[in-house]
Amino acid sequence: MSVLFVEKIEATHTDYDTIIVRFSGEIGIKSDWTRRTYEKQVLQNIKYYLKKDNVKPEKIVHTRGRIYIKTSNVSPTSQVLTRTFGVSSVSPAKQTTSDLNAIFEATVSIAENTINEGATFAVRCHRVGTHTYNSLEVCREVGGQILAKLKHRNLAVNLTEPNVTLTVEVRDKDAYVYTQTLPAPGGFPVGAQGKTVCLLSGGIDSPVACWLVMKRGSFSVPIYVDNAPFTDETAKQKAIQTAKKLQEWSAGFMNKIYLVSNGENMKKILQEAPARFTCLLCKRLMYRIAEQIAQKENAYGIVTGEAIGEQASQTIQNLCAIDEAAKLYPILRPLLGFDKNETEILARKIGTFELSTQKAKGCTAAPNQPATQAPLTALQEAESKLNISEMVQSAIKTTKVLTL
Amino acid sequence: MSVLFVEKIEATHTDYDTIIVRFSGEIGIKSDWTRRTYEKQVLQNIKYYLKKDNVKPEKIVHTRGRIYIKTSNVSPTSQVLTRTFGVSSVSPAKQTTSDLNAIFEATVSIAENTINEGATFAVRCHRVGTHTYNSLEVCREVGGQILAKLKHRNLAVNLTEPNVTLTVEVRDKDAYVYTQTLPAPGGFPVGAQGKTVCLLSGGIDSPVACWLVMKRGSFSVPIYVDNAPFTDETAKQKAIQTAKKLQEWSAGFMNKIYLVSNGENMKKILQEAPARFTCLLCKRLMYRIAEQIAQKENAYGIVTGEAIGEQASQTIQNLCAIDEAAKLYPILRPLLGFDKNETEILARKIGTFELSTQKAKGCTAAPNQPATQAPLTALQEAESKLNISEMVQSAIKTTKVLTL
Repeated sequence: MSVLFVEKIEATHTDYDTIIVRFSGEIGIKSDWTRRTYEKQVLQNIKYYLKKDNVKPEKIVHTRGRIYIKTSNVSPTSQVLTRTFGVSSVSPAKQTTSDLNAIFEATVSIAENTINEGATFAVRCHRVGTHTYNSLEVCREVGGQILAKLKHRNLAVNLTEPNVTLTVEVRDKDAYVYTQTLPAPGGFPVGAQGKTVCLLSGGIDSPVACWLVMKRGSFSVPIYVDNAPFTDETAKQKAIQTAKKLQEWSAGFMNKIYLVSNGENMKKILQEAPARFTCLLCKRLMYRIAEQIAQKENAYGIVTGEAIGEQASQTIQNLCAIDEAAKLYPILRPLLGFDKNETEILARKIGTFELSTQKAKGCTAAPNQPATQAPLTALQEAESKLNISEMVQSAIKTTKVLTL
Repeated sequence: MSVLFVEKIEATHTDYDTIIVRFSGEIGIKSDWTRRTYEKQVLQNIKYYLKKDNVKPEKIVHTRGRIYIKTSNVSPTSQVLTRTFGVSSVSPAKQTTSDLNAIFEATVSIAENTINEGATFAVRCHRVGTHTYNSLEVCREVGGQILAKLKHRNLAVNLTEPNVTLTVEVRDKDAYVYTQTLPAPGGFPVGAQGKTVCLLSGGIDSPVACWLVMKRGSFSVPIYVDNAPFTDETAKQKAIQTAKKLQEWSAGFMNKIYLVSNGENMKKILQEAPARFTCLLCKRLMYRIAEQIAQKENAYGIVTGEAIGEQASQTIQNLCAIDEAAKLYPILRPLLGFDKNETEILARKIGTFELSTQKAKGCTAAPNQPATQAPLTALQEAESKLNISEMVQSAIKTTKVLTL
């Protein structure tokens, strides 16, 4: 999935005055009401980013399935957009009228600045509305004009594998010319779906899980369960820094992180429960803590970075045994089917990989030989010797909410 | 994630006599016991496939982190391997000894058949063990020999972007020469994890979800809940055909599909519950049916193809409300963070897309205006007027197990 967006923008030609923003295809097939709501949310999120980055476009036009942003400053605007969920792609473009001569002029001018000596090119045309010409005629005529005007460059037309593709989009009285379609992350705009909470550790996986859920429109409130003194301050700082990075993708929705101290509870687990169950009991406790916060936040699910078999606590049997602790909310695990390297590829694109891989002390409470197939009954028996609800409450009492 | 494997094998040079099989990187970082168990499972699955395809290799050698398959028939063997979970990549290779002259001979012979007139090439060398030469010397000497022996072809060395890369792997007394590294699907071998069950519809998503869970080592038993007369026979046949396709990835583990008739229950739901809740009540019923089968199968989770917001029943609020119906098992939703087009890309690679997109009657029980934010209490109230446990039991009584 990580193949579907890039961060880097190559062409930011000064001829361009407009950015064409295309909504995710999945938004277009929603019912009318949902489509309008989602498109509005995308627009609102774009406006948030533009304001935050102090980019002031001259005009924003929202039509069905598209947004046109008029700006003389396409580069920073495109940057913002390729990080906006609900957008499938963007094209920096030159706007002109649907008059054929105006199209020729705009296209030749862009061709002059994008097609190098000896290169090949193709012209494509999409047309909506009634015009005195058809698309094929546009392609042929524009191609001819470019060959004539740039004769000294020895250009050639190549329709299958051109070096440069010039696209002319004619929409009623307007026309747009562009050479690039920059992929954006797709999905739904943050805010389109109900809220979730996310158990954010200092590791690689949980930020990616959180990102994937945001990509599908659900703003996820991060929770860091601090097992100090079994983990160190670095782990906590990593989680906070990661939340700040995820905030960049959240269109302003993510603005805080819950910090919960769980070290005292871990001491009790280590003292009173079989060592091989430590991580599983810790996870069950974290789910319950997350449930309390989810209730407070009016959220609808708990996001975790668990992938089948990635760690001992994540075997299918163990996932089954720990899942039972969450009675009120679904545990949402978008990475279930991911290999570690696939998660890492995505973490790099999101921008959390570097933060997640900073050195920190591993959790010293983890046993050498963790159970890989713990029966639920055995975990429940171990918990019966602990006062679980009191442990949850005492952890919740330590909660600090840090503004990001 | 779908970027990480291909199905097509290009080079199947007759010089080759060995296939180098590399385990997924994630297997290599497991504890010794787990690593050995997983590697053995990969080997067992490979042997299953080879036997099934009637491919008879001369010899299979399993060393740490690698399998070497000696065969004169590299093409069908490679085909099998690029569909085997737990394998990250394979290379058809020529085996020889670590004697420098033997390496020269093998490399020049392969170069002769793989490097075209005027092309560029590079030689790389990996070495394990003690030898009278180092890796750099191998590269330099082999490169020189190729240039000399194939002088008439006007070849050139290019270390950054060569047309052909010849790799020499020296392992103690053996050496292997190859030009291709074919990606395989990665993950863990089917059978490495506990069993799950999978709610397989006739649609695009659920087979991909099932495949992803199998990719992580969990064999998933397919269940088709048949809502006829609200769906048609084609939908059922699509599910069966899809299960057969998934079977090809299961290394022999998947050999049956559960077929459960649920039409009578749907009639009751339509008669007695608010129309906007139909799909949600249907899903809650399906989860409960799947739980019964999971218990019978000693499985540890229920796999579904749900993605956040993809359908009205899959909003975050609705996922929260329907999840509650599954009391005994986690609902495993590996597609939660996938966009529809990402699922489709994967479905095409898996080979289920064509089957899933055959025309079938959509479920006629689905309402025009389904609830997108159903409160759990409202669903529970609707269910209180139905005899849910009797409905589950009467559906279970209709269960047929079809051998694939």
